[in-house]
Amino acid sequence: MKEFEEKTIRTEHIYDGKIVKLQVDDVRLPDGKTSKRELIRHAGAVGVIPITKDNKIVLVRQYRKPLEKALVEIPAGKLEDGEDPRVTALRELEEETGYRADSLQFVTSFYTSPGFADEVMYLYLTKNIEPVDDAAAADEDEFVERVELTLEEAKQYVNEQKIHDAKTNYAILYLESLERM
Amino acid sequence: MKEFEEKTIRTEHIYDGKIVKLQVDDVRLPDGKTSKRELIRHAGAVGVIPITKDNKIVLVRQYRKPLEKALVEIPAGKLEDGEDPRVTALRELEEETGYRADSLQFVTSFYTSPGFADEVMYLYLTKNIEPVDDAAAADEDEFVERVELTLEEAKQYVNEQKIHDAKTNYAILYLESLERM
Repeated sequence: MKEFEEKTIRTEHIYDGKIVKLQVDDVRLPDGKTSKRELIRHAGAVGVIPITKDNKIVLVRQYRKPLEKALVEIPAGKLEDGEDPRVTALRELEEETGYRADSLQFVTSFYTSPGFADEVMYLYLTKNIEPVDDAAAADEDEFVERVELTLEEAKQYVNEQKIHDAKTNYAILYLESLERM
Repeated sequence: MKEFEEKTIRTEHIYDGKIVKLQVDDVRLPDGKTSKRELIRHAGAVGVIPITKDNKIVLVRQYRKPLEKALVEIPAGKLEDGEDPRVTALRELEEETGYRADSLQFVTSFYTSPGFADEVMYLYLTKNIEPVDDAAAADEDEFVERVELTLEEAKQYVNEQKIHDAKTNYAILYLESLERM
């Protein structure tokens, strides 16, 4: 198969933030011409599909500033530098929901938007989780509300676009596929 | 349910590019404190799950500069200003694969990365498509190679992370779920 590599001629660093970095690369295309590529650098993220003993999916409702509205999503968070994604996943689950898990099962990983960003998302499943009294607190600029749904309710949330993001839509489709197996 | 709205105090426009815009908002949090939000603005995108008469999935292999490697993905593209996503989807399918479709079935839509970007992805399915001799050409800075796979082969591509992006992983899981129904 062809590689179609685009060689970097020059990189312009535009912004270096807490969540994203933005750079614009001048690239040499396979036909020898040049073009520009706008690139977002992101540390990567994890999402956890948490299922309680009574078979509810534990989700979080959170205001999403880019959309100027709240979405209901699986617990998720950004990878810290050099951190094992499983460690991030267990921490975010506890901080955002008050549930603690002992183990995680890898589901899949994917780039969220490979046309312009390098963010990769690792998805895990955990079952039979239980709430704990001494749960770690969420980040101080993070306000989330726990929402527990049956799979049928979650599918309805997808239809109503209350659930409306890649990792959570994937998670609900994945849980549906497990039910049918 | 709580809204947890984050009111914008000030917006700093950092970058206005061809694909993305970047801004940083100072926001008022629900507890009255302030924080910063890094926001990527994107016009939105479409992806098409194209199935041929002999039940192959038509995919495209494309170099993804943010990842510095090629991925195999469903045909996709950015929405033009004010354009009906179905029009974008039919055009991108033809330009990237040489196949033309008469109709599209809506599958789902989702925000790709709602923590920092407003990009929404619309996914469509089209079946029994046929190649055309007079297919529209791809954008001049776009180099893609058509790849036709059975569902089993596509699942193997997911396992090998040759397929490794949100819309395409979702598409393969969706096709699996159709097979089981």
